[in-house]
Amino acid sequence: MAFLMAEQDKISGPLGIIAGGGGLPCVIAEAARARGLPLHIVGIRGEASAAIERFPHTWVKWGEVGKLFDALERHECHDLVIIGAVTRPDLANIKLDLGAVRNLPFLISLGMGGDDHVLSSVVRFLEKKGYRVHGADEVAPELLAGEGPLGHHAPSAEDQADIALAFKVVKALGRLDVGQAAVVSKGYVVAVEAAEGTDAMLERCAALRKSGRARGRGLAGVLVKAPKPGQEERVDLPTIGPETVNKAVAAGLAGIAVAAGQVLVAERDATVDAANRHGLFLVGQRFPAKSGG
Amino acid sequence: MAFLMAEQDKISGPLGIIAGGGGLPCVIAEAARARGLPLHIVGIRGEASAAIERFPHTWVKWGEVGKLFDALERHECHDLVIIGAVTRPDLANIKLDLGAVRNLPFLISLGMGGDDHVLSSVVRFLEKKGYRVHGADEVAPELLAGEGPLGHHAPSAEDQADIALAFKVVKALGRLDVGQAAVVSKGYVVAVEAAEGTDAMLERCAALRKSGRARGRGLAGVLVKAPKPGQEERVDLPTIGPETVNKAVAAGLAGIAVAAGQVLVAERDATVDAANRHGLFLVGQRFPAKSGG
Repeated sequence: MAFLMAEQDKISGPLGIIAGGGGLPCVIAEAARARGLPLHIVGIRGEASAAIERFPHTWVKWGEVGKLFDALERHECHDLVIIGAVTRPDLANIKLDLGAVRNLPFLISLGMGGDDHVLSSVVRFLEKKGYRVHGADEVAPELLAGEGPLGHHAPSAEDQADIALAFKVVKALGRLDVGQAAVVSKGYVVAVEAAEGTDAMLERCAALRKSGRARGRGLAGVLVKAPKPGQEERVDLPTIGPETVNKAVAAGLAGIAVAAGQVLVAERDATVDAANRHGLFLVGQRFPAKSGG
Repeated sequence: MAFLMAEQDKISGPLGIIAGGGGLPCVIAEAARARGLPLHIVGIRGEASAAIERFPHTWVKWGEVGKLFDALERHECHDLVIIGAVTRPDLANIKLDLGAVRNLPFLISLGMGGDDHVLSSVVRFLEKKGYRVHGADEVAPELLAGEGPLGHHAPSAEDQADIALAFKVVKALGRLDVGQAAVVSKGYVVAVEAAEGTDAMLERCAALRKSGRARGRGLAGVLVKAPKPGQEERVDLPTIGPETVNKAVAAGLAGIAVAAGQVLVAERDATVDAANRHGLFLVGQRFPAKSGG
């Protein structure tokens, strides 16, 4: 686990943060700053938020691989965190710079396979170039959901049964490098995440509920998020945040369960507040499938 | 398999067809008529098409369980086929007739669990009342997709790899009573079906493609449909039809593969024509996961 690695493999030099979308890149930057680490953010244009501009930063477009490496070299960043959501770019529409052309066989190899295949390839590629890639939790371990309820509410016995089934679904799928999330309500698997992502999956659940195809009145059903067994956790830890809670509310769910120690909670206070306010439980549970089982 | 049962368990008396949506109820009625079987269709209001009215028929609403049994008794239908798509009714909004109230504990038990649980329960319930429930393929075996290409086009080697992965996904999920379909493109699992159904899943794939999140240009990717291992095949055989092909075209897929001998092709001529016209392959493949593996 990344947790244990942190002991052996401390980050000393300036931290390079390769930033996709959402608030996490800035959270990691804050955490690095609090630890006294110099840092430089490389934001992916069209993905990362403009909020990264309050830190030292460089913008790169998809395909500007040479510019990415230049920025990391210029700021002496050999320790990297890759964080934030990215949409899969359409490789055929990307303009490549010289650095990208030099690494073309690698880039072409990314065109095949599931997310985890792509992310592990990126990590291996960076490691071969001499970079050390760290999990976001090594810089900010407080971001990980622990075990037990995070807010005021706890799952009922019926919720627990739904949670158990949803973990089974995520585990079965994760082995095939599919998604990290599922929604189960009263023993019925309502939705399974693949390329569309968790937010779109929850929107679908809300629509199904409105059309009367998901049963039950009142809050019912759970969202479960967990990493794929064996996935490259350093670059693709599943994440929840306030928006996840809001979308779970719209879908009429009773709560959210995540794999304890393996899922990031972005904006924890806002996330927990939203859950408390809407009466949802938010709970970290051991995910026994960790090592493939 | 239903196929083998047909030998031991021939349908002799009038055939009762409990009809949900789509064209299949009428196809079964035609097939029964061609075999010289008297028949009576009980159409579920809001689900079955008005086209059933050209056959002897009775309309019932969800909850009119007494009326359903009356119709079957009056027309001496002890052999039943249950066919056509239904949306899961919201039990709390259903008006129950006396026959439904008498069977209330059974109806309440349907409120829990996945589709297959519900359908097996319905079959067992009808069998306990003395009805024989038959698969649609026992009346019209020509509806099943056979092995090999159904149209002019055949999958490429790359398509075959996607087909193999999609069958794996469907098998892993089917064990957990989730969906019957998945879409895979270039080794990437784009979508997995749960409560939303195949059509909605394909619409999602089309949207993902437009937003650039599913990769590739030209036709790429496959839809695979197969029954859940051990599922109640007599009432829930997966089905494809011309609309499936049209939605696969909109999603930019290269073709459709189904479990040979285990998937119904509604309106076969129109389905195969649509595939040929758009350059999609349509193929039946052995699904080795049949008995749970």
